[in-house]
Amino acid sequence: MNACDIIFKTRRKQPLSYDEMKWFIDGYVKGDIPDYQISAWLMAVCFNSLTREETKNLTLIMRDSGETANLSAVGAVTADKHSTGGIGDKTSLVIAPVCAACGLHVPKMSGRGLGFTGGTIDKLESIPGFNVSIDFDKYVENIRTVGTAIISQSGNLVPADKKLYALRDVTSTVDSIPLICSSIMSKKLATGSDCILLDVKTGSGAFMKNTEDAKALAQLMTEVGRDAGKKCRAVITDMNQPLGHAVGNALEVIEAVEILKGSQKDRLYELCMVLTSNMLELAGMGSIEDCRKAAENAIENGSALEKFCEMVNAQGGDSSFIDDYSLLPHAAHKLEIYASADGFISEINSEDIGFAALLTGAGRSTKEEQIDHSAGIIMNCETGQQVSRNDLVMTLYSDSQQKLKSAAERAEKAFKITQEKPEKLPLVYDVI
Amino acid sequence: MNACDIIFKTRRKQPLSYDEMKWFIDGYVKGDIPDYQISAWLMAVCFNSLTREETKNLTLIMRDSGETANLSAVGAVTADKHSTGGIGDKTSLVIAPVCAACGLHVPKMSGRGLGFTGGTIDKLESIPGFNVSIDFDKYVENIRTVGTAIISQSGNLVPADKKLYALRDVTSTVDSIPLICSSIMSKKLATGSDCILLDVKTGSGAFMKNTEDAKALAQLMTEVGRDAGKKCRAVITDMNQPLGHAVGNALEVIEAVEILKGSQKDRLYELCMVLTSNMLELAGMGSIEDCRKAAENAIENGSALEKFCEMVNAQGGDSSFIDDYSLLPHAAHKLEIYASADGFISEINSEDIGFAALLTGAGRSTKEEQIDHSAGIIMNCETGQQVSRNDLVMTLYSDSQQKLKSAAERAEKAFKITQEKPEKLPLVYDVI
Repeated sequence: MNACDIIFKTRRKQPLSYDEMKWFIDGYVKGDIPDYQISAWLMAVCFNSLTREETKNLTLIMRDSGETANLSAVGAVTADKHSTGGIGDKTSLVIAPVCAACGLHVPKMSGRGLGFTGGTIDKLESIPGFNVSIDFDKYVENIRTVGTAIISQSGNLVPADKKLYALRDVTSTVDSIPLICSSIMSKKLATGSDCILLDVKTGSGAFMKNTEDAKALAQLMTEVGRDAGKKCRAVITDMNQPLGHAVGNALEVIEAVEILKGSQKDRLYELCMVLTSNMLELAGMGSIEDCRKAAENAIENGSALEKFCEMVNAQGGDSSFIDDYSLLPHAAHKLEIYASADGFISEINSEDIGFAALLTGAGRSTKEEQIDHSAGIIMNCETGQQVSRNDLVMTLYSDSQQKLKSAAERAEKAFKITQEKPEKLPLVYDVI
Repeated sequence: MNACDIIFKTRRKQPLSYDEMKWFIDGYVKGDIPDYQISAWLMAVCFNSLTREETKNLTLIMRDSGETANLSAVGAVTADKHSTGGIGDKTSLVIAPVCAACGLHVPKMSGRGLGFTGGTIDKLESIPGFNVSIDFDKYVENIRTVGTAIISQSGNLVPADKKLYALRDVTSTVDSIPLICSSIMSKKLATGSDCILLDVKTGSGAFMKNTEDAKALAQLMTEVGRDAGKKCRAVITDMNQPLGHAVGNALEVIEAVEILKGSQKDRLYELCMVLTSNMLELAGMGSIEDCRKAAENAIENGSALEKFCEMVNAQGGDSSFIDDYSLLPHAAHKLEIYASADGFISEINSEDIGFAALLTGAGRSTKEEQIDHSAGIIMNCETGQQVSRNDLVMTLYSDSQQKLKSAAERAEKAFKITQEKPEKLPLVYDVI
């Protein structure tokens, strides 16, 4: 086989066989095929896409490029959730303990954030003592006994995605549906859960700017997942505004705890309930209505919050912060932003908020950068809300006044105030 | 500026400014921008093409990436010819001395062949003593006094093309009209002639399989050449069959000499006359009819052959071979191929003939490979000719019986014999 012929086939929209795809991707992981041939091929994929069969093959070849997690020692059905990424998305911190409280085992291997804000792992590291690198046996043991554990994805899992993603990132070949699908699904398949719920975001703050693309991605991912023997479902959800009120690592942990306490019943709460009930139903735990009730009960009766504390403690963390948020890292400085006019908030641009959060120190722009766990943004308003001039709309937190100033400049751009009340956007567009 | 943004712009079909293109290409030549970003961009160009303005800018930036030849010391109008590549194309060896005999100065910097058969430089190196690497002052002096000189392109000329072409070759991004245009025209502009005649091949044996693509390439190249201040013209010519009867280095030198002697008046002769008269007219040496007459006269009165000998001698070669071809390298073995049936030769496939010639040893498949100057193929027939079973159609030459056998297998596939006389293909499709 020959790399040029393979590139040329994709350029000519001629499907690659499993063997050709395997030779090409394995050769890349081994270092036999250079970056420049893969990046040319990736660009050809961006233009010509891949067939469903090719996407499935690519996903399985990537999954098999390294170790895969064997969760049979959990001894029960396991379910995982993946979101395609959004600003302020802390649903994993809520969903895992709610599912566990309902008797569903949730193993989670998550990533650190690169880009606007921290990932689930970065958020959990705000909690004093929390260990995201417990060994695999302990991880399985915690899932079995507590019901959930969240750890950082090991380096030996899907090395093909690590190399391919790093290359896509520097060659403007990130936003391709089959490439996104194979990247996400290869990791989800390698982490070993029986059921996979996908939260595919759509809107201005998401990769998929429109609902059709989001549906196409959701359709492809669920098909590939089912082909690989998993129970799979996707929920298409809105990302035209940040999710919840907090953006930033410790700030988002607090918001997740507020949801678990039952004291915040907003869009974020609603999304957590939608995702949890779909996960429970997918795992065969009753009708969607029963599963929804079970999830709501787990919040109301405090069992979800208890599971959260159990998980924190089982991973070496100190859960006493749930009653005293001052035990979490807190920022030295804050800056308040007020409404510039009377009217309705017609838009809170997710990208602007994400970028502002990055400027406060809540994210990292290179892999090496340190995250400031205390930094971030609290929004005091939602899209559609009526405000008066000089109402507090947002507070920024950071360890530096300088950072606050540049973050504020960007954050102010995120808000649009109009005289007419804007139309309310749906939270869930579709379930696939 | 940022390489990702530049790649993304081309992916989105948004034109690059001159400054963006310059930063990107110069950065690549300097080694600041890696192969993998350029190859992704090249693939995006293959899909989205470039605007005429972008193509012109790319060509000029490539031209200026290294040294350019200053031919002012020639003290006269200079003209060059470039062919987009075909099997058995030895027209340069004829055209340069014919033009010189008509008083037009022809500087030629040519390449070695990579692929099926040798390039002009490889062909000339069949001649005992011929030096393709005379220094630049001697080169200019020879053009001034003899009227023509043909040397190997120096390494400092258009380094951007050297790097880009090598990368395109291994990433399946060769066949893109703006990339072919910028590659050819950057070199032609850097070699410094006032007039440029382009022989754009079309047909089964050419890069441009159909006439429309060939015309589009010709149009773009002449426009870019004129924008850069050159007199430019393109002739679209047929490459559905090999050009002439000989394929292989010494064998093609002999055929060129036969044309110069006036003893071969076939399609190859006709093409040489068409190209020469267009070059002479482009350089302002009279009407196309007068120029054609001048070219024919130069053959008839022997002055073109004399110029050829002068050029050979001026570059250290021994021109006495023109009266005794045994002074050229000759192959140890030959193998004759006969017609398999009665009928008309309906096709001689150029690619099969080229590949067979490579197998005899006449070409190189890697840069490092040595060419066997004596190897190659002599065809005893033309497309459209009537043959009887067992007529001699072809003789293969090589230094090894083994090579002859594998070459013969491929060469036999090149011939199609039909009962109906095939339609005659035109030689020239258009002049642009």
